[in-house]
Amino acid sequence: MGDFKKVIFEPGKKTIKVRRGSRLVEVARDADLKLETDCGGLGKCGKCKILIADGAGKPTAAERFHLSSSDLERGYRLACCAIVERDMRVILPERSVTVGGKGRFKDPGSGLVPEPALRKEYLRLPSPTLEDQDSDSARLRRCLRGPKPEIFPLSVYRELPEVLREDNFHVTVIGDGRVIRGVEPGNTASTNLGVAIDIGTTTLAGYLYDLGSGKLLAEAAVLNAQAARGADLISRIDCIRRDEKALPELRALVIGSLNELLGILVEKVGFRQENIYMATVAGNTCMQHIFLGISPASLAASPYVAVVKEGVSVDPGEVGLLLNKAGRIFVLPNIAGFVGSDAVSMIMSTGMDRSGKISLAVDIGTNGEVVLGGKEKLLACSAAAGPAFEGAQISRGMRAAAGAIDRVFFDKQMEFGVIGGGEPIGICGSGLIDAIAALLDSGLVNHRGKILSPGELPERGGPQLAGQIIEHEGANAFVLAKSSSTPGHDPILITQRDVRELQLAKAAIATGVSVLCKEYGIGIDDIDDVFLAGAFGNYMNRDSAVRIGLFPPELVGKITHVGNAAGIGAARALISRREIERAEQVAGAVGHVELASYPDFYKLFARHVNFPSAHV
Amino acid sequence: MGDFKKVIFEPGKKTIKVRRGSRLVEVARDADLKLETDCGGLGKCGKCKILIADGAGKPTAAERFHLSSSDLERGYRLACCAIVERDMRVILPERSVTVGGKGRFKDPGSGLVPEPALRKEYLRLPSPTLEDQDSDSARLRRCLRGPKPEIFPLSVYRELPEVLREDNFHVTVIGDGRVIRGVEPGNTASTNLGVAIDIGTTTLAGYLYDLGSGKLLAEAAVLNAQAARGADLISRIDCIRRDEKALPELRALVIGSLNELLGILVEKVGFRQENIYMATVAGNTCMQHIFLGISPASLAASPYVAVVKEGVSVDPGEVGLLLNKAGRIFVLPNIAGFVGSDAVSMIMSTGMDRSGKISLAVDIGTNGEVVLGGKEKLLACSAAAGPAFEGAQISRGMRAAAGAIDRVFFDKQMEFGVIGGGEPIGICGSGLIDAIAALLDSGLVNHRGKILSPGELPERGGPQLAGQIIEHEGANAFVLAKSSSTPGHDPILITQRDVRELQLAKAAIATGVSVLCKEYGIGIDDIDDVFLAGAFGNYMNRDSAVRIGLFPPELVGKITHVGNAAGIGAARALISRREIERAEQVAGAVGHVELASYPDFYKLFARHVNFPSAHV
Repeated sequence: MGDFKKVIFEPGKKTIKVRRGSRLVEVARDADLKLETDCGGLGKCGKCKILIADGAGKPTAAERFHLSSSDLERGYRLACCAIVERDMRVILPERSVTVGGKGRFKDPGSGLVPEPALRKEYLRLPSPTLEDQDSDSARLRRCLRGPKPEIFPLSVYRELPEVLREDNFHVTVIGDGRVIRGVEPGNTASTNLGVAIDIGTTTLAGYLYDLGSGKLLAEAAVLNAQAARGADLISRIDCIRRDEKALPELRALVIGSLNELLGILVEKVGFRQENIYMATVAGNTCMQHIFLGISPASLAASPYVAVVKEGVSVDPGEVGLLLNKAGRIFVLPNIAGFVGSDAVSMIMSTGMDRSGKISLAVDIGTNGEVVLGGKEKLLACSAAAGPAFEGAQISRGMRAAAGAIDRVFFDKQMEFGVIGGGEPIGICGSGLIDAIAALLDSGLVNHRGKILSPGELPERGGPQLAGQIIEHEGANAFVLAKSSSTPGHDPILITQRDVRELQLAKAAIATGVSVLCKEYGIGIDDIDDVFLAGAFGNYMNRDSAVRIGLFPPELVGKITHVGNAAGIGAARALISRREIERAEQVAGAVGHVELASYPDFYKLFARHVNFPSAHV
Repeated sequence: MGDFKKVIFEPGKKTIKVRRGSRLVEVARDADLKLETDCGGLGKCGKCKILIADGAGKPTAAERFHLSSSDLERGYRLACCAIVERDMRVILPERSVTVGGKGRFKDPGSGLVPEPALRKEYLRLPSPTLEDQDSDSARLRRCLRGPKPEIFPLSVYRELPEVLREDNFHVTVIGDGRVIRGVEPGNTASTNLGVAIDIGTTTLAGYLYDLGSGKLLAEAAVLNAQAARGADLISRIDCIRRDEKALPELRALVIGSLNELLGILVEKVGFRQENIYMATVAGNTCMQHIFLGISPASLAASPYVAVVKEGVSVDPGEVGLLLNKAGRIFVLPNIAGFVGSDAVSMIMSTGMDRSGKISLAVDIGTNGEVVLGGKEKLLACSAAAGPAFEGAQISRGMRAAAGAIDRVFFDKQMEFGVIGGGEPIGICGSGLIDAIAALLDSGLVNHRGKILSPGELPERGGPQLAGQIIEHEGANAFVLAKSSSTPGHDPILITQRDVRELQLAKAAIATGVSVLCKEYGIGIDDIDDVFLAGAFGNYMNRDSAVRIGLFPPELVGKITHVGNAAGIGAARALISRREIERAEQVAGAVGHVELASYPDFYKLFARHVNFPSAHV
């Protein structure tokens, strides 16, 4: 036994014997304990941080890179680096991925009367007699309160006789008014969970509710495993167009991730996935198509039509989601090929469809969505901003995670903040906007977006900053963090190409806002409220956004962040079937403006590529 | 090649080489040519009769038994007996099993406007443009005539984009008003078959229609392979109660037989099974439960409740029936556990639900069904007659097939007719009723049902018949056909036990009629019409039925045969969705009388066990 060591995982006291020299990440995997890892266990992402209470070895270089020295001293290690050399006691992290990546979540349950579309009802049916020979189905139907269901699926007929007789004709019925979805022996009415799901291109967020009380029980997020087949929608659709096996594969990837998400959610509160009876799903149109196994190929080429825009409800088995088999999944309606139910959710979560004011709501992302209007009229468009706001296709870009520069200030010199503190390893979208706003303020970048050479600088740029301009790939670049101040000893640059990427991105959104105002027949001043949805909207500095021209200066005082609007919309639809109906009304009422065919689009876009010429 | 011989099958000229000495029935099976055989190829049933135009060998004993000498001379043989000794040319019989076993079929299409529940519609949709970005589903929905469907199943969404684009947005839609069931590229509207199915305990009958014109194209019948697990319903339900694997097995057996039936039907008219889009199904409650995969166990024990009585519609894939996958199966509603949709069909095919007269309708069978009333009120009961009328549990009983005595006359001596002519091999239900009526007339059986000994006979029995009474198993028996006149040299007897079986059977039906009249508050004289449904009703001699007391003499002149009422009802529902609605109304309106709990049942039954005491 000299070759074997004992590893105890806490909480839970799961104990296993492993061969000495095993990597802890694999030990955990064999023990069915999932650890978050973005990099596949290569020591690159630093996410598999665990606490080795007894038996920690010497930290590796990767661990020294990712973990602070005080953490290292306390026994924190990366599971992918730690080797089992002696008996160990390991404290696992909270299993949840933070939902933060999707933006703050205000529980939308408050103010909504719980009236979920799928209901459970406990019935004590009278037993049949020779005087009461009603069939099993008729007996059930006559005893249900409220409107009588028209339809029993064959699966329910098949299980009905046994279920009814298992507990002396005491039975819990799961139904949605018109259809009986399932029957369970005895009284199970109090166990009735539902999950609101936001299917993002990058992240899947889930919110677990008690459908009886409408109370939020848990929230979690996981990465969408589809990312392996392309970071953005267009590359995934391209996959599907080229290879007929890609659609089922991409579908299986997102369903696999969602099932993992559901597992995390129910484990947090001590339930099982079969206790979940209902799911509502919001997301962009493409993600919804793939989730349902419908080809999104027609979305990618003019005239960009969807196969389905209306809300769709399906059985869990039809899509492979591991809920209770009697459950039902409600996929919220879309507005257009690139204005999905996440936009519908945004409208519902801001209440702009019921407001007498004129509101502008923007979800800034690779596929930005812009909605303008109020209860009289709503217009929407999609703005293909590209991934710059999410830190992709930026030289040192990264997601808003630990080590990302997320704030940049200019006050004679550049200062920045890093998520989680410590030394910076890259820059995320909000940091990029701040940085370029600062470069504009300092005069290092002109209104056409050119990074000036030290000799071209105006006076206010000052000699101090001039020293941070270097030549890089045949153009100028700004050294935001010097090589000596980064852990990899690689400077963090804002390159000319980074500035160009941001110009295209912000121009796409700004053009969308302009076009909608023109179509609506109003000016910027007529907008009463501005809602920013999604994670990015939460983190972005408003003044910087105005400075780079993402929004006109008139709007800066009117901005509210609404958190994960898609999740909020899905949660509202989960709690109340009236919100499902509302989603359908909203999706049907919103006028879609196709930017690609808008007459002045390219002229407007070109104008918005430039930065505002002076600090306002 | 000396060991191989060539066999040509006509029509079709299918030619195969086989090893010399092969049995022709196996050669045909290997060539995918199905030959009807009830006995499994044992030379017992004589059904696999074929014509060997060239190369016939010497007939075997079994062939000499089943075939006339003129047939044998012309080259007719039994495929199960014929051995391939030389090259052969074989003329196959018409493939159809006759529907005769289910009774005559009057095409119910006449007078019905074709309005099937499932319709096909060819649409030429406009292609999408940047100005018309409707989704595929919205495009389809807006172009449909009539009420807009609410529901697209996920399977339709999944195939929609490809189907629409295969023929430039020209598409044929299969739908039932509220649900789109399928889409096909191009114009396939003219290929639209439907099948009406009567699922009997013994025989499955099918009627193939063109749903566009409402025209009957073909009819056929096959045996229900479930018979291998019990001849009657109760024995099959017992199987299911004892063994949890029996339900799926019995379901698979009937579905297999039905798929064979559909194959025979479409081959008759040169179509394929996937050209069938709709099926309607009538049958007894138990057969319908098993067809749907629902346990009929609760039918067999008091209080005899069904799981489902309402009409059920399912997808072909849910039950395994090989129609077009976009098709739909409508299972007609039942009235009670032993009053099935065959009884509903009987009411519809006689029109008694719309008649101002008072009608009595009876389907005589193992599970007899009796319906009484008119448009104001309808009452029904089931009468457990047992299998005597179908020739089962009778000493020499057999189905109404070739070789069965089906008619018996008494005119000083007994004479009988044999189905197909020739020597008798058994007796079927109609022959048994005739025989016992004749024995009553001749005085050989008294009104209590006792076969008298030769010394007890009244004068009119005469010494001639007295010689036909023998002792058999401790009681008297009547020799209907002497051993010298039967092919097996076994006399055909009517035993005391046979008489008792018939007494119980006829008493069950007669008691049902009496109880319904009492419940309805009318006398026998108030009945205006009597409808006899099913094969047995067609063949039975009315006077004999009255003589044995199956019906009171007042009704003899009012009897009409209605043929296969279950098939007619299913066909009406196939042709017009209004008839499906009518079936639902009828099933809901009929009052069910449970004989088992009727207060005077046993007293009435005991009274009906006796025969009427004198010839009327």
